[in-house]
Amino acid sequence: MVKLTLTKGLQFIAEDARNNRIVVDTNTEFGGFDQGFRPMDLLLVSLAGCMGMDIVGILQKKGGKIGAFSIDVEGAKADDHPHKFTKITVKFKCEGDYRREDLLRSFELSRDKYCSVIGTLSDKPELKFVV
Amino acid sequence: MVKLTLTKGLQFIAEDARNNRIVVDTNTEFGGFDQGFRPMDLLLVSLAGCMGMDIVGILQKKGGKIGAFSIDVEGAKADDHPHKFTKITVKFKCEGDYRREDLLRSFELSRDKYCSVIGTLSDKPELKFVV
Repeated sequence: MVKLTLTKGLQFIAEDARNNRIVVDTNTEFGGFDQGFRPMDLLLVSLAGCMGMDIVGILQKKGGKIGAFSIDVEGAKADDHPHKFTKITVKFKCEGDYRREDLLRSFELSRDKYCSVIGTLSDKPELKFVV
Repeated sequence: MVKLTLTKGLQFIAEDARNNRIVVDTNTEFGGFDQGFRPMDLLLVSLAGCMGMDIVGILQKKGGKIGAFSIDVEGAKADDHPHKFTKITVKFKCEGDYRREDLLRSFELSRDKYCSVIGTLSDKPELKFVV
């Protein structure tokens, strides 16, 4: 369960079940305060974070030693409303002492089996609203 | 563009193009440090934040005065891998001086026309990976 509370303008504070908090915001020209992540950027973080945890976890179980690991993720949006992401590009960078084939297998396992965000994007969940 | 960098265990720091930063983390039993939002919770924040901004913005343009606005969002996950969300429930609470029909119309416009996250969930984007 996550709770979002409007703070000012179009800015929200989001809080999870463990009391972690993040600011969700938008551009000042849209009525935000430019002080936190945009909702669509959070979707990219969600995808990259999910895959990153899978890959690092699996590669380590295969005996890999990871020195540095980062992910660049970028989304291309449609021109028309609702400006959905039409393409998301995810680039992984992994430094350390590991076998290349183990990294590729860890990535494939995330993409094809374990990543919950890819699973959700692949098969739209039922959305229920209470207004 | 968003960049995620592994910090320790399965914990990442995510940074957006405006240098906002958030911690992405998981449970200690999975190798995380329990110090930040889970990736799947960020998907819920993304959806609720996107709709919240739409609804607040539209309702204000219709002349509504919003006193307090919050959103509870919860996801039900499948038992099997990849434990995707099968159902997401979003509850809006809005206090203030506005017409009920304007709130409902603002909600419908977000759901049916403007929300980029719903648009992305409804039609899976192409995913491109570079490993």
